[in-house]
Amino acid sequence: MAKYAIGVDYGTESGRALLVDVKNGRELASAVHAYKNGVIDRVLPGTQVRLEPDWALQDPQDYLEVMRTTIPAVLRAAKVKADDVIGIGTDFTACTMLPVDEHGTPFCMLPKWRNRPHAWVKLWKHHAAQAEADMLNRAAAERGEPWLKLYGGKISSEWMLPKIMQILDEDPEIYKAAARFIEAADWIVMQLTGLERRNSCTAGYKAIWHKQHGYPNREFFKALDPRLENVVEEKLGNEIYALGQKAGEITRGAAALTGLREGTAVSVGNVDAHVSVPAAGITEPGKMLMIMGTSTCHMVMGTEEHVVPGMCGVVEDGILPGFQGYEAGQSCVGDHFAWFTRNAVPGAYDAEAKKRKMSIHDLLVEKAAKLDVGESGLLALDWWNGNRSVLVDVDLTGLLVGATLQTRPEEIYRALIEATAYGTYVIVENFEKHGVPVRELYAAGGLPERNGFLMQVYADVTGRVIKVARSAQTPALGSAQFGAVAAGAKRGGYDSIFEAAKKMGGVKDKVFTPRAREHALYRRLFDEYVTLHDTFGRGANDVMKRLKKFKAEVSRAGAHG
Amino acid sequence: MAKYAIGVDYGTESGRALLVDVKNGRELASAVHAYKNGVIDRVLPGTQVRLEPDWALQDPQDYLEVMRTTIPAVLRAAKVKADDVIGIGTDFTACTMLPVDEHGTPFCMLPKWRNRPHAWVKLWKHHAAQAEADMLNRAAAERGEPWLKLYGGKISSEWMLPKIMQILDEDPEIYKAAARFIEAADWIVMQLTGLERRNSCTAGYKAIWHKQHGYPNREFFKALDPRLENVVEEKLGNEIYALGQKAGEITRGAAALTGLREGTAVSVGNVDAHVSVPAAGITEPGKMLMIMGTSTCHMVMGTEEHVVPGMCGVVEDGILPGFQGYEAGQSCVGDHFAWFTRNAVPGAYDAEAKKRKMSIHDLLVEKAAKLDVGESGLLALDWWNGNRSVLVDVDLTGLLVGATLQTRPEEIYRALIEATAYGTYVIVENFEKHGVPVRELYAAGGLPERNGFLMQVYADVTGRVIKVARSAQTPALGSAQFGAVAAGAKRGGYDSIFEAAKKMGGVKDKVFTPRAREHALYRRLFDEYVTLHDTFGRGANDVMKRLKKFKAEVSRAGAHG
Repeated sequence: MAKYAIGVDYGTESGRALLVDVKNGRELASAVHAYKNGVIDRVLPGTQVRLEPDWALQDPQDYLEVMRTTIPAVLRAAKVKADDVIGIGTDFTACTMLPVDEHGTPFCMLPKWRNRPHAWVKLWKHHAAQAEADMLNRAAAERGEPWLKLYGGKISSEWMLPKIMQILDEDPEIYKAAARFIEAADWIVMQLTGLERRNSCTAGYKAIWHKQHGYPNREFFKALDPRLENVVEEKLGNEIYALGQKAGEITRGAAALTGLREGTAVSVGNVDAHVSVPAAGITEPGKMLMIMGTSTCHMVMGTEEHVVPGMCGVVEDGILPGFQGYEAGQSCVGDHFAWFTRNAVPGAYDAEAKKRKMSIHDLLVEKAAKLDVGESGLLALDWWNGNRSVLVDVDLTGLLVGATLQTRPEEIYRALIEATAYGTYVIVENFEKHGVPVRELYAAGGLPERNGFLMQVYADVTGRVIKVARSAQTPALGSAQFGAVAAGAKRGGYDSIFEAAKKMGGVKDKVFTPRAREHALYRRLFDEYVTLHDTFGRGANDVMKRLKKFKAEVSRAGAHG
Repeated sequence: MAKYAIGVDYGTESGRALLVDVKNGRELASAVHAYKNGVIDRVLPGTQVRLEPDWALQDPQDYLEVMRTTIPAVLRAAKVKADDVIGIGTDFTACTMLPVDEHGTPFCMLPKWRNRPHAWVKLWKHHAAQAEADMLNRAAAERGEPWLKLYGGKISSEWMLPKIMQILDEDPEIYKAAARFIEAADWIVMQLTGLERRNSCTAGYKAIWHKQHGYPNREFFKALDPRLENVVEEKLGNEIYALGQKAGEITRGAAALTGLREGTAVSVGNVDAHVSVPAAGITEPGKMLMIMGTSTCHMVMGTEEHVVPGMCGVVEDGILPGFQGYEAGQSCVGDHFAWFTRNAVPGAYDAEAKKRKMSIHDLLVEKAAKLDVGESGLLALDWWNGNRSVLVDVDLTGLLVGATLQTRPEEIYRALIEATAYGTYVIVENFEKHGVPVRELYAAGGLPERNGFLMQVYADVTGRVIKVARSAQTPALGSAQFGAVAAGAKRGGYDSIFEAAKKMGGVKDKVFTPRAREHALYRRLFDEYVTLHDTFGRGANDVMKRLKKFKAEVSRAGAHG
């Protein structure tokens, strides 16, 4: 008798459920539910309360609606009985956090707080806590806090502590009244199991928790603000559960909501990028997964904790239990190409693409693929949206050099693709230099599915084989794997995520293999890239930052010529 | 009784005659004749003889056709009798040169030589003598030739000596048989007057002639090639006539060709850019004329000879008699904007321009003009076609820095305009630093006529008033002025070009005045431009050259991936 697991992937605009066969990972059905209130960045729903710039909120009711609609939908579509579903796993964007009362009820669901912006879920891309992040970074640097270097030397305004600090600064009543601040990843698990089971991934990567040392200490928090001295004990709690653990079982209430059987196993929460690693079949160090979309997230495991400058973080049990999980990122990948096609491709190209019934990307790829390495004479720095790794600097900007009167659009397009590949190569070499081997690359996400030319450029640039995850929905598949592990072998699942990854995950047959001649040519161009990277990224010429500052000055003055 | 003068301007694709009133420069009629054989760059006319890449020839018969058709046409159109035309002046592209026999007959008109490429006119943009130019520059540098520094340290392959050397290298028979090598500017004057009257402008700027020191000496030429030892005496001649002198009078034959009266005064030849200076009414040092089209030519006079690094040349009597004429240049101005609209402006913009019945340039200007200085955060180096002044380096390429995901096409367009203005400012400051004051700017050519926004940017960047030449055809007007001077006051003209310039030349009423706030802001951006300019242009990072070399290597290998 076949057994099934369900993975639910909570994205920025919608949530998706995927029902898979536990034996082999075969995907039987999936269903998507778009959040009714989406990303809330202008007015609080049902009120006249306007939000400041850079705010981004969500409504937790939307998360429950995903459960209520998509799980019955996949059961129905696959004609699978709830009794045959042995486990469920979930993953979320992060840090996406909310204040709850002692029952776990979101403050924004309580009439008392509903019209207060800080009562709502702060989405990962809520960027209004920059002042708090700056203060936190300053304090950590001044005090020489040992954990700072594990996060590339900088805590992002997107993470848990700046978001909590913003609540304290701007709405201290809510700070005081909240029983807990909790990641949405853990809140949704609480809705299914009735239990608070904070996961090691979001705690480690987004809340500065360390398996050996715990959270930053009381003195540090006190130095930030006396009211924060006991924030861990009062608002977060010290119990953290490693990925791969069972969080609990579906409660009677959750069974009514989802149509699943009461007692079905539920895994601890997880993050979309991290949960994709086992979905690609990766179970060991040395294999870096690139989750490639508008931006790229790089995940690789190691056996020891190393300080790698400019990475996003290293967390024990942060990707798979028993390993150090390393994360790095590039802030502008697909976004980069989308910007180009919208802003810099002439009408004649759009017309040709339309006539030949191809996308503009496919047309540009066709033309760009005919060029040899270095033939355009162009080189770009892929910093249209700043640089996440290894420079950790949002104020860097894009650069293109080598343009002539003969330069054509497909040459620039290719230069942009190559620039993102060089950016990845910098990350790869940086890991290796600091003790974290990267032997093979794996890719998942929208870009690798659509753009084989890009994958070949990445293979040629990095000199590494690239394999592509078999599933087109790796986060949901990874969550289903963790669901099967929560159930355990006795109930028809697996006793470890490593076994589940081998059986249920994997890659496509098509592998991108680096070509020796092209890699040798790209090595020379890469040296040029690194020289520009260091000139403009490491202080020799800070023109990018000065131009940004100048721009901000002029925009503030507002006196247009 | 009104008196008239005619100016004939020989361009790259056509020649134009302009008939003007000597009293006030009023333009009564103009006529254009397109060269039948145009620019010959593939096959010799009437033969199967194919040309190598980089060749560019012309047919001198086309130059005579301009005289034969346009002069009668302007007389007719203006209802002016030939008896009332007191003088004619001409200007030409340069160095545009040809071999002639002892009668001044072009070799390509002689059946014996007609099917030999080197018998034809080498147009200014014939670029096939680079090897010879390199050799000449090497030899001059090694020997420490004193004249080299008067030409920015580099002799262009476009100039007279490399072109002669190429003939000697590749067709020594023609070199030997030629009675003279002559500028087309002087050849056309010879056709009108029967006299060889070489002008000081082309001799100085294009053939390394110096009023005090003459041509480079015999030893230098001998070092280049023993056969060149006596090239000056044998092939060029040492008699040079200052601009503003009368070359002679219309011969009977020329009268038959043109319809002008025999005995009509003819001025010595001139160059299109240089002859525009008096047309803009400039008669004194400190006023720099920018002739702005696909590229920009900068002309300014001084009272002393200074060595200004990176200028194109300094020549006594080279612009107006009695002054040191300084020339500098930017190789990519209008070409730059044309490249942008063809290669990097999205279809939606073309559609908007079409709908609103404007040119794409006008649309981009409208949008760009709404931005404040520095608001885009972009900065460019205007080297899409190399850098003529002050770096004198064809291997430099374009650079753009500051791009973000919010960058719009009009922001890039504005950055390109600003980059060319910074390039001009570098030239202006370089002149001033080396003893040649530049107090005011004047503009002539297609761009200033069409683009007032661009002129305002130039004024704001350079902090200088800019006046625009009144005439839309400054070269032909300048030539007519010189024609009036050749006639002299007694015949109803003028005794000096200074007087003619005041009466017949001038500027429009609209003047572009620098705005203090904008200039102060631009000064800060200009500092950033200069830092990038020096980093990439003066050896700190030769990435542009390495990318070009890499490109050439890959293209030669021809093994496309």
